Amino acid sequence: MSTSTQQNSKAAHLSFALAQMNTNVGAIEQNKQTILSFARRAHDRGARVVVFPEMTLSGYPIEDLAFRATFRTAAEQAAEDIARSLQEEGCGDLFVVLGTVGTAHMERVEEGGAHDDRPTNTLLVLHEGQILHTYDKQFLPNYGVFDEFRIFTPGHDTLTMEVDGYRLGFAICEDIWQDDGPAAQLASADLDVLVTINGSPFEEGKESVREQLCQRRASEVGAPVIYVNQVGGQDDLVFDGSSFVVDASGEVVARLKAFEEDLRVWTLGADGATVGATVRSSADGSDGSDGAFVLASDPLAPVLDADEKVYTACVLGLKDYMRKNGFKGVVLGLSGGIDSALVAAMAADAVGGENVWGVSMPSMYSSDGSKDDASDLAERLGAHYDIQPIEPLFAAFQNQLALTGVAEENLQARMRGVIVMAYSNAHGLLAVATGNKSELACGYSTIYGDAVGGYAPIKDLLKTRVWQLARWRNARAGLGGELLGRPVSSVPPIPENSITKAPSAELRPGQKDSDSLPEYALLDAVLEAYIEKAHGRADLLADGFDEATVDTVMRLVDRAEWKRRQYPLGPKVTALAFGRDRRLPVTNAFRE
Amino acid sequence: MSTSTQQNSKAAHLSFALAQMNTNVGAIEQNKQTILSFARRAHDRGARVVVFPEMTLSGYPIEDLAFRATFRTAAEQAAEDIARSLQEEGCGDLFVVLGTVGTAHMERVEEGGAHDDRPTNTLLVLHEGQILHTYDKQFLPNYGVFDEFRIFTPGHDTLTMEVDGYRLGFAICEDIWQDDGPAAQLASADLDVLVTINGSPFEEGKESVREQLCQRRASEVGAPVIYVNQVGGQDDLVFDGSSFVVDASGEVVARLKAFEEDLRVWTLGADGATVGATVRSSADGSDGSDGAFVLASDPLAPVLDADEKVYTACVLGLKDYMRKNGFKGVVLGLSGGIDSALVAAMAADAVGGENVWGVSMPSMYSSDGSKDDASDLAERLGAHYDIQPIEPLFAAFQNQLALTGVAEENLQARMRGVIVMAYSNAHGLLAVATGNKSELACGYSTIYGDAVGGYAPIKDLLKTRVWQLARWRNARAGLGGELLGRPVSSVPPIPENSITKAPSAELRPGQKDSDSLPEYALLDAVLEAYIEKAHGRADLLADGFDEATVDTVMRLVDRAEWKRRQYPLGPKVTALAFGRDRRLPVTNAFRE
Repeated sequence: MSTSTQQNSKAAHLSFALAQMNTNVGAIEQNKQTILSFARRAHDRGARVVVFPEMTLSGYPIEDLAFRATFRTAAEQAAEDIARSLQEEGCGDLFVVLGTVGTAHMERVEEGGAHDDRPTNTLLVLHEGQILHTYDKQFLPNYGVFDEFRIFTPGHDTLTMEVDGYRLGFAICEDIWQDDGPAAQLASADLDVLVTINGSPFEEGKESVREQLCQRRASEVGAPVIYVNQVGGQDDLVFDGSSFVVDASGEVVARLKAFEEDLRVWTLGADGATVGATVRSSADGSDGSDGAFVLASDPLAPVLDADEKVYTACVLGLKDYMRKNGFKGVVLGLSGGIDSALVAAMAADAVGGENVWGVSMPSMYSSDGSKDDASDLAERLGAHYDIQPIEPLFAAFQNQLALTGVAEENLQARMRGVIVMAYSNAHGLLAVATGNKSELACGYSTIYGDAVGGYAPIKDLLKTRVWQLARWRNARAGLGGELLGRPVSSVPPIPENSITKAPSAELRPGQKDSDSLPEYALLDAVLEAYIEKAHGRADLLADGFDEATVDTVMRLVDRAEWKRRQYPLGPKVTALAFGRDRRLPVTNAFRE
Repeated sequence: MSTSTQQNSKAAHLSFALAQMNTNVGAIEQNKQTILSFARRAHDRGARVVVFPEMTLSGYPIEDLAFRATFRTAAEQAAEDIARSLQEEGCGDLFVVLGTVGTAHMERVEEGGAHDDRPTNTLLVLHEGQILHTYDKQFLPNYGVFDEFRIFTPGHDTLTMEVDGYRLGFAICEDIWQDDGPAAQLASADLDVLVTINGSPFEEGKESVREQLCQRRASEVGAPVIYVNQVGGQDDLVFDGSSFVVDASGEVVARLKAFEEDLRVWTLGADGATVGATVRSSADGSDGSDGAFVLASDPLAPVLDADEKVYTACVLGLKDYMRKNGFKGVVLGLSGGIDSALVAAMAADAVGGENVWGVSMPSMYSSDGSKDDASDLAERLGAHYDIQPIEPLFAAFQNQLALTGVAEENLQARMRGVIVMAYSNAHGLLAVATGNKSELACGYSTIYGDAVGGYAPIKDLLKTRVWQLARWRNARAGLGGELLGRPVSSVPPIPENSITKAPSAELRPGQKDSDSLPEYALLDAVLEAYIEKAHGRADLLADGFDEATVDTVMRLVDRAEWKRRQYPLGPKVTALAFGRDRRLPVTNAFRE
């Protein structure tokens, strides 16, 4: 255990700033500037300690960037720069808790012993121009979306530190999800507060799981737990922020915004209670303070409702994917159906309708209603709108190929894919795919056709949820205000007809989705059990679904799963196909 | 340490059969039957011990199949079936060493304690109708193509066992790559032989690395090392087999074929030397034998030359991908260029020319020579050959879209992609992409155009290697014999003109690859240093490459890397996007 030896008498209060920052993977210089700006604000507001999310300087998750020595060196340099800059600006008295990629153990190893080329996932405490302390994450998640055993080596020591007589303990994300982690290790360390820095991706319902977890840890250490989470989209993850503090009794005493950057102050009193109002400390400094105004804790940010969270997560994912990869506009096919309508509305909420190009690509099977709905949608959004009939293109191909059946249906979808990519190439737009989770899971989609695109904003929404969010978004139009900083127009974006009509791919006369798939209410219930809950066949029957439906859905899903993974593949023969460290984030600003 | 207590006097010799098997991921019943067939052959040949590769019953690598309880149960049942079947057939005296997914620790845990849902990577010894011993892999690779920390929990004990007075130690693959693995743990265990079962993917030059490694381990344990590796293609890995035995002095005393199933016998004498010829053991059985003929060790299989290895690896990868996924034929575009010619030759070697559909798709910029070369190639291979001009299709699109520049070039490539997929859909053929590693690394390829396909046989071959293998394959035609069991025709498959002409995408008049890329000899040298050796910018300059070339190549590669990863993405919002165990092998025969 590493412990600072300082033993001050306890001040009357200790103020923390929770700095909920949107980091950018690989953009070390940009992250450094953002950190400095948050730290200055924290100092200006009188905070004694500012706490950032996990891997603040490097961004998170960094995948195989961890193996680049140039990247690690740049991060190390940037941490020293931050400490020095704050000191030079007169903010050196602030304790800055941030995350970065750590290499200290590598230097030790290089002096002799086996070589481990994996860095650590590290927390730094900066103070008075120096790196005062380091703590290395002990528990590395390697399940689900996490691959931390691949890229990090674990730490083995706890860290505690005193500030103004308050004893602080530290943990990084997965550390607190394990029962034998720092909370247990520090249970008898007489902590005044457990500070945790996190990169915890959004999932529906996860905020309350996090709060319950921290309530348990608070009870174990007998002190409040500070939970700072990152915010922002990174590839196919969305971090919701939603940082908070629970006190020793389990009460939530601080809460930050969801899906936006935020900085809030929370002040702990010597009795372990939250200081909830501005008070003047003793003027003679006998309580260890300097006699200035004591910082009140900021009010709690509101909690969003369930649909607002999911809708906002999708918008933020797309918005940050575009911003961090340098895209200014999107192009998508507008069929008049609900999926493309919802995606277009999300895109307009992300980057403004003027940056959305909607292309209607009617075939001989498209109804007039569909074309009207597409045009109506574009008008409501203020989006660019083009009509590109696919009939002449389809006819040219059929003149040569004379396809029938599914091959003929796929050909129509591929004509549309080529057009969308032509707009993308000609105007530098991000092509977005409009497939929802129900149809993607069942393979009710054409590869290189409607599946074309660089980002699929609703790939994780079941069809029934698509309808629900469309209704929510239209209702939201009446409430005004802002959505991720953009004013919400009073016009409901999605034509009512797109919501109410029966879904159809319109690839043959009179086609309906229900010709090929179970009704969506039933399908989505089976998909949720089979995919989300990993129920096997026996479990699904026990869930009460009928055998024919279960077998149909399992066959569709397994086949689609396989198709989704088919490309691009080929043997590795001369070495690892694209090098040993080429498993990199898509959104990655690092340049050698 | 688990050790059998039996202490026999040492027999004069002990015969091992090395069973180099081509397993099929998820096809437990099929793997079981193949194991039984190999075991019977081993028994018929008088072997006392038969050794299979890693994860024989389950196939390897199984990725998230590891989490399916139904899969684990099926594998467990199959292991018991094998032991019982062999016993019933009178082969119960054989010791069968095979690999499977292990769950013994889970039953222990379920009786109390924390739940770990990860199985073990396990070696079983079957004998007299029972599972006699188990050994769990201790060192789990989690780098490069391996993700074993995600799916397995490590073992903690060594295993030794006596057979006819010989002491055997055991290890699984990564175990012997670690200096503190079983070889070190068993250094003073007085082993007579160290048996290792492996799933080691082919890389150029890796066979000699493996042999050198086993020579070190043989020296550590003071005994021969048996190295049995799996053979066959599995998704984008190719396992070469190339199993072998090194004796205590480091000499290679047994060697199996590369890229084919094989079973060979190796017999160890009581003095630790290899029994190299058929000899009669003492008739009275005083040496512990039964007085029968002693098995001679089989002769060593020949070593292939470097080009033959790489060519065969590509063919086997494609052949097994098709066989294991149920594809009978392939379709590809034939441009007359070297890449499509080599891929077509590989496809014909994999499944026969009669199962190859070549489509020539000339544009207004295609030279007559290109069309002739494509037709010549198809004739040499006995492949189906169609001509589908793209000009009318391109004209129909341009009539609506009027594209220019790169968008116009991409449009041509996408017309071809649509045609290839039309053949694929209409005839149930696997679309193969013909891109080589140089052009894919530099992004000199059109997404949804020439990149279309379910498998890319030469994605890991640099362009200079493509030419080299084409020359090798043409020369090979003169030598007769077989390639992966298929007779080699005397006709050189690849038109000389496809090898010698300057490479061009033929997407605009007079276009040459060298307009956009450095000359291939230089480009490939930089790519090898940047991608394979992970040299950074400073390293590349120190390698002697000029700054302009280095910056061009780095910019191209980084951009292409990013483009390759763009699709399909989207936020995870309701839970893990496709469930917690949906990271599955493409080639996966398991059904619930």
